[in-house]
Amino acid sequence: MTIKEKSLLLHKKHQGKLEIRLKTPIENKEDLAVLYSPGVAAPCMEIYNKPEMVSEYTGKQRTIAVVSDGSAVLGLGNIGPEASLPVMEGKCALFKRFADIDAIPIVLNTQDVDEIVETIAHIAPGFGGINLEDISAPRCVQIEQKLQEKCDIPIFHDDQHGTAIVVLAGLINALKIVKKPAAEIKVVVCGAGAAGSAIIRLLVDYGIKKIYAFNVDGIIHQGLQSDDPVTQMLMKITNPDNTLGTLADLMKEADVFIGVSAANVINEAMIQTMNTNPIIFALANPNPEISCERAKAAGAAVVATGRSDYPNQINNVLVFPGLFKGLLAAKAQRVPTTVKVKVAETLASLVTNEQLHVDYIIPKVFDERIVKTITKVVCDIVKNIRQNNLKT
Amino acid sequence: MTIKEKSLLLHKKHQGKLEIRLKTPIENKEDLAVLYSPGVAAPCMEIYNKPEMVSEYTGKQRTIAVVSDGSAVLGLGNIGPEASLPVMEGKCALFKRFADIDAIPIVLNTQDVDEIVETIAHIAPGFGGINLEDISAPRCVQIEQKLQEKCDIPIFHDDQHGTAIVVLAGLINALKIVKKPAAEIKVVVCGAGAAGSAIIRLLVDYGIKKIYAFNVDGIIHQGLQSDDPVTQMLMKITNPDNTLGTLADLMKEADVFIGVSAANVINEAMIQTMNTNPIIFALANPNPEISCERAKAAGAAVVATGRSDYPNQINNVLVFPGLFKGLLAAKAQRVPTTVKVKVAETLASLVTNEQLHVDYIIPKVFDERIVKTITKVVCDIVKNIRQNNLKT
Repeated sequence: MTIKEKSLLLHKKHQGKLEIRLKTPIENKEDLAVLYSPGVAAPCMEIYNKPEMVSEYTGKQRTIAVVSDGSAVLGLGNIGPEASLPVMEGKCALFKRFADIDAIPIVLNTQDVDEIVETIAHIAPGFGGINLEDISAPRCVQIEQKLQEKCDIPIFHDDQHGTAIVVLAGLINALKIVKKPAAEIKVVVCGAGAAGSAIIRLLVDYGIKKIYAFNVDGIIHQGLQSDDPVTQMLMKITNPDNTLGTLADLMKEADVFIGVSAANVINEAMIQTMNTNPIIFALANPNPEISCERAKAAGAAVVATGRSDYPNQINNVLVFPGLFKGLLAAKAQRVPTTVKVKVAETLASLVTNEQLHVDYIIPKVFDERIVKTITKVVCDIVKNIRQNNLKT
Repeated sequence: MTIKEKSLLLHKKHQGKLEIRLKTPIENKEDLAVLYSPGVAAPCMEIYNKPEMVSEYTGKQRTIAVVSDGSAVLGLGNIGPEASLPVMEGKCALFKRFADIDAIPIVLNTQDVDEIVETIAHIAPGFGGINLEDISAPRCVQIEQKLQEKCDIPIFHDDQHGTAIVVLAGLINALKIVKKPAAEIKVVVCGAGAAGSAIIRLLVDYGIKKIYAFNVDGIIHQGLQSDDPVTQMLMKITNPDNTLGTLADLMKEADVFIGVSAANVINEAMIQTMNTNPIIFALANPNPEISCERAKAAGAAVVATGRSDYPNQINNVLVFPGLFKGLLAAKAQRVPTTVKVKVAETLASLVTNEQLHVDYIIPKVFDERIVKTITKVVCDIVKNIRQNNLKT
């Protein structure tokens, strides 16, 4: 049976992948009286009198919403809310499996930025955090920003920042292998949507100076006329020497290629014009920008993809469970700006120098240290900020 | 330990009462590939191509949202979304326990009718139904109506209709005991909010003709100047002879008193002016309009309360689990208007004529026949309407 057939069978068998479970039995009148009326009035009034007690007496601080408008689902595009539900349920399943977080899938039948922001802000009181998922760029960037201004719980668009953090973690280790300092490398990012733009911002935060963004309209450069706020932001932080031309032009003497675009957009010839020991992250799924085999044959020193059947899988599940677990445990009100680089460094550090290898630059998904370590790092950052009265 | 102490302890121990459970394990790379990427694309595309498949491949048709704005919580009043969360989690626990429905608590930080309607309509695609809970009148009536116009899933405000259905079920059996025909009795309803107004509407649907509504402003009658749409509606369907006066005046020669108001608003003298064999439903919680003991001592033939420590508990949990289970199973798009009377009759019929007694007019909460029987009745009504192309 193929993966596809197995998936259809499994989804049908269970009617989805999640269910609610009671944490305590209801078997008699007294259970009812304690759990519901009249007993439930007691925790209600405790919270009413002391709002922070909502973390103690309810599931709020162990529950997040995984919210999508179905506009940019996996590689499937704008398939709408109902069709995106299997992905959101799957994401929630991963939150439970890897971090014991109770995640609730919420799919929206609007793709209007302000309606999405209002809707999520209105349902926020019951959740300890919001994971935005599969919302298309540039709306995803605006939604995340506007929502964080309205809410006192962390808002995190995983397709942007989760991807960016795992990419940076992999890149940190890949650079160790080829012995190049981050501040001196040239990076080409192909695809400037949600993931691409967030990767670029995080690489800049990390200290990389020469980054070039290429999208369907070509190289992002100074002379562009664009209303898109993401493109405008990228114009400011990429392409320091205002290079013009094709993707092939851009690849010349690059040290790193990061693709979050589409299948087969680069070839061997391009890789051969890159700097020595080029690093190729070909992350388009399921078919990468160039196959792992071809990239290696063309001289790539390190290759990563989004696929589980090749080494070095850049997989968001390495980050979001531990990240949210830490944010929830620390009762964070937002995602601190310093968290992203720090989590990437932490994830990279789980591959020791002895283990580090061209085919092992990033820990594997079922490595049990990951969630624990990231949770602690995130928790410590939030607590440190709070103790020092810094703005998170 | 008191119920209150037990409740605080239990809520704190479990951080709420619910959690998410995976229906299928995630233990290796293949599980991940089947449940999530790339396998999950298969059910997504099945749903995209055939929207009704969302019931087969996701939890939508076994999941409802329990939504509140925290404006009228139990007897606690307008305590807001966070403080209402223990009640909503409790309601969800009851849905799971009694009907194996996965119910998700959603608490809203807005009390504006249109914002509530918009928010719920936007999150509706992931749910098979919406249970509105603890929203104050008259907004609850407007919200339910407007929302049903926007949504193709059933919207049900349990504080209105759940209560009304159980009251009617109890009344049907109480009338059997006192041998009075519904069409000839005089009913006084004290309290004309969410529950009171819905009870009155349902009693009218059932065929009761002489109903009087009393609220904080007195007897609802023809000459009232009111902007409140619920009061306007009640002016049309109650008080056929336009009686004026006090609650005591209204009670004279009444056959039935139904209180959904406040503690101790009636007394023995009032009951003694009622018709022979008066029926008293004193449903204010935890302290009824008159105690069971006092009502009986004053001559009440049948007494029901909202309390579990007295006979004849009028408890919504007798209806909402089976009602929603039926609606979900039948993939209902709304709650058919005929369902309410039919479910009340069904619930009443579970007490046989042999069992019927002044202290047993309504089945007990843990009676396992209830959910099964109501589910089947609701399912049959929806299917019958669909087969006959009638409007639900």
